[in-house]
Amino acid sequence: MTQLPRLLTLSPQDNVAIALDDLAAGDVVGQDSLTLVQSVARGHKVAIAPIAAGRNVLRYGQIIGQATADIAAGEHVHVHNLGMGEHAQDYAHASEATELNAATDARTFDGYHRADGRVGTRNYLGILTSVNCSGSVAKFIAEAAEKSGLLDDFPNIDGIVPITHGTGCGMSGENEGYDTLFRTLAGYAQHPNFGGILLIGLGCEVMQVSALVGGRPIRADGALRYMTIQHEGGTRKTIEKGLTELRGIAELANAATRQPAPISHLMVGMQCGGSDGYSGITANPALGVASDMLVQHGGTTILSETSEIYGAEHLLTRRASSVEVGEKLIDRVRWWEDYTARNKGEMDNNPSPGNKRGGLTTILEKSLGAVAKSGSALLTDVYLFAEKIDKRGFVFMDSPGFDPCSVTGQIASGANLIVFTTGRGSVSGYMPTPCIKIATNSEMYARMADDMDVNCGDIISEGVSLHDKGAEIFEMFIRIASGEQTKSEDLGFGGVEFVPWQIGAVM
Amino acid sequence: MTQLPRLLTLSPQDNVAIALDDLAAGDVVGQDSLTLVQSVARGHKVAIAPIAAGRNVLRYGQIIGQATADIAAGEHVHVHNLGMGEHAQDYAHASEATELNAATDARTFDGYHRADGRVGTRNYLGILTSVNCSGSVAKFIAEAAEKSGLLDDFPNIDGIVPITHGTGCGMSGENEGYDTLFRTLAGYAQHPNFGGILLIGLGCEVMQVSALVGGRPIRADGALRYMTIQHEGGTRKTIEKGLTELRGIAELANAATRQPAPISHLMVGMQCGGSDGYSGITANPALGVASDMLVQHGGTTILSETSEIYGAEHLLTRRASSVEVGEKLIDRVRWWEDYTARNKGEMDNNPSPGNKRGGLTTILEKSLGAVAKSGSALLTDVYLFAEKIDKRGFVFMDSPGFDPCSVTGQIASGANLIVFTTGRGSVSGYMPTPCIKIATNSEMYARMADDMDVNCGDIISEGVSLHDKGAEIFEMFIRIASGEQTKSEDLGFGGVEFVPWQIGAVM
Ligand SMILES: [Ca+2]
Ligand SMILES: [Ca+2]
Ligand SMILES: [Ca+2]
Ligand SMILES: [Ca+2]
Ligand SMILES: [Ca+2]
Repeated sequence: MTQLPRLLTLSPQDNVAIALDDLAAGDVVGQDSLTLVQSVARGHKVAIAPIAAGRNVLRYGQIIGQATADIAAGEHVHVHNLGMGEHAQDYAHASEATELNAATDARTFDGYHRADGRVGTRNYLGILTSVNCSGSVAKFIAEAAEKSGLLDDFPNIDGIVPITHGTGCGMSGENEGYDTLFRTLAGYAQHPNFGGILLIGLGCEVMQVSALVGGRPIRADGALRYMTIQHEGGTRKTIEKGLTELRGIAELANAATRQPAPISHLMVGMQCGGSDGYSGITANPALGVASDMLVQHGGTTILSETSEIYGAEHLLTRRASSVEVGEKLIDRVRWWEDYTARNKGEMDNNPSPGNKRGGLTTILEKSLGAVAKSGSALLTDVYLFAEKIDKRGFVFMDSPGFDPCSVTGQIASGANLIVFTTGRGSVSGYMPTPCIKIATNSEMYARMADDMDVNCGDIISEGVSLHDKGAEIFEMFIRIASGEQTKSEDLGFGGVEFVPWQIGAVM
Repeated sequence: MTQLPRLLTLSPQDNVAIALDDLAAGDVVGQDSLTLVQSVARGHKVAIAPIAAGRNVLRYGQIIGQATADIAAGEHVHVHNLGMGEHAQDYAHASEATELNAATDARTFDGYHRADGRVGTRNYLGILTSVNCSGSVAKFIAEAAEKSGLLDDFPNIDGIVPITHGTGCGMSGENEGYDTLFRTLAGYAQHPNFGGILLIGLGCEVMQVSALVGGRPIRADGALRYMTIQHEGGTRKTIEKGLTELRGIAELANAATRQPAPISHLMVGMQCGGSDGYSGITANPALGVASDMLVQHGGTTILSETSEIYGAEHLLTRRASSVEVGEKLIDRVRWWEDYTARNKGEMDNNPSPGNKRGGLTTILEKSLGAVAKSGSALLTDVYLFAEKIDKRGFVFMDSPGFDPCSVTGQIASGANLIVFTTGRGSVSGYMPTPCIKIATNSEMYARMADDMDVNCGDIISEGVSLHDKGAEIFEMFIRIASGEQTKSEDLGFGGVEFVPWQIGAVM
């Protein structure tokens, strides 16, 4: 094996490439035998063609800024010769709205077909709670069910999942914080990965059980029952009745079996957490390839974490399917600017000193690393946090960058699969939806192999192509959706990771 | 037993009393054989002496407003003849700062004497988490310890308590939200009800383990160990090492045994949740008697829930030990006005239409119901949420009214006992601190006897005096502090009720 220092070019259109090792002046690197003009540290950019002052610098085939001086091939490209002009603020809504070619093969996964037309990738019973104050009782019911061997009679059910959280009261009953929590709980109550739901309230909370179940059949299959602790007369009586209700729901849920479904029924929430310098060059662009493949097969992928794409929103508006969709995204960006300002903060996704030492120069470049997860597909729609996603293709759902919170919103919106890239090594799971963990680098993958499902470090360590890696991830989507367990499912994660987005004052 | 309709007078200075039944015009009620001028619904107020227009109306011996018309004895007093003048805004700091007489008897409880001079009422091992992302692993360690029978060798330890939550990342690292969470986690790490702490982080979170343990010995007894999942190399390795660390901590914690301690070492967090029309006339004033008794014995009681005392803050400022202490309270009230305003809400503790139907007329009267828990003792100091309480006597700790959040702050501040009045029937427990539940009415107590420790409904149903009921609660403080189990401990509560106050934007 050759030991030459190497470069990674992320897109054929790029005029810069990434140093995969510390390079010295005079080193000859890359397919085109480029000679380094000066030393360039690992992770930093090298010009692979001459770039005249004022011309665009391209990475991932995307503009990350403009040359502020003439740059020769082989020169280091960073803050001294790369800046951002004003053109970045041009949203150019829908100007690059090109649909991907549809796939020519019809792929399927084995899933649970639900009465509302959606398809689940798991078949859990959920014990959902309206408020923190009913959380312990939900757990007691799950524990009592386990102790009594209730599921022994229902082999088609994957398990019982209590969904507990820290809110539901001490809040206004009529603001966006309430609406957001309401959507989140309703989304879980209706989620296709649940074969049935037992909803438990305390009774006096702001988030009333009657509001959650009122006015419409919340599940088309009728597999939802509810109760409040105050109405039942306390903890022990609620547990006792809860076990009876759970058995009734289990009888409905157990009727479901895995049946083939077109992979257009997959809805994959994409995440990145614990990012490192490799996230934007290995795992995220490989996931972008997999996202494009799923979209070509008629499926849905969700990009979120608005605070982490801030500064690159005009890349998404250009890919918007219409001006209206582009403007919906910008509305959310404006909302975030207000949200952070009224909380005495500000939107700031600029590269930190550490980012800059690692080779990231502009906010565009940093945010591009996050946006890379979304490949090149048309942006078909933009959704609020936990809003039900009703279009296929690549979509955006607004959320914070805080991983458990963002995933919670994606699951509430309908995600039946989560895929999560990580450089530092995040360990987490999100019942009822399986979560595929993708390592950005081989060193972390080796150290944390018990927690990681896919290694994208071999894009660098073994020269695996982004396309091959994307295809590997795409195939894993189908296997996991069909029932193969992720590492975090094997380990039993998911008991604490339901984190609704709490917006507004705690009263 | 006589069936006469009855009245409840809450203080000898009062000029109104509370109807305990629906009363009709002409009914003759009360010790002074008052004749009703008109019908008065249960829970509403009756004048028990003539009140000239403009004169103060007194309930709990406190001004709840002024007569807006001449009122005859036997008349209904409500919105038609009772209003609030401007004088309520006079804080009159420290103007009624009278110390209670010290108790003449020296009482003790059996507790765990800690190296920092504090005394615990329980002896748990805590597995504390810096971030949501380490919560599942903390639970896995607790489960593995239970499965391995680790505590079989350590009979003096009450159990292992994982402390998990929904925050610790996706936040600024330098604002009051961060500072508040930091105080909360540090307060739990040092809590005297823990004989030892294992602190688990993920590694890349905003709330760094190194910051939590850095710069000072966080526990005087040295019984704290810490690790991060990313440093250890993933979930399984962290569990394995965590079990070893836990055993090391357990050896230290197991050396503690219950020994007599003066009850000046009791610090009781007072709460009310799921209030009803009886809260302000039975359980809260009875708790006020118990609070005064504990203060007379040199102990500490904590009033909180700033949003629920809003409008009656001038009652507390008058009882402040100094102008400075009174001003600290008003600073918190002003902070709350800003906090709610910037979150597009407002402070509004005015009686709701439902409150008014129940007989509450003014914001003073409503807030008085909450303040009644604090009896009549001097207010010795005012603390931030989760700030370490370092003075004895009656103190105020700022918090939301949301019960699990408010209790979390009180425990972080050092509360080794919680007492919680409830009318609707709240069920909850707050490990590591036991929580005494006090029912405001006999009907709920009978229905939820498995969850309630004390019934204050007999103040009405059997005419038990507030003084006797307060003494009963005070004696229960000592028994529970000495190891008797509360109902919520028997039931196993405490797994989900750690709810840090999340202030600011989720990023
Ligand atoms: Ca993130
Ligand atoms: Ca993160
Ligand atoms: Ca994330
Ligand atoms: Ca409350
Ligand atoms: Ca409370």
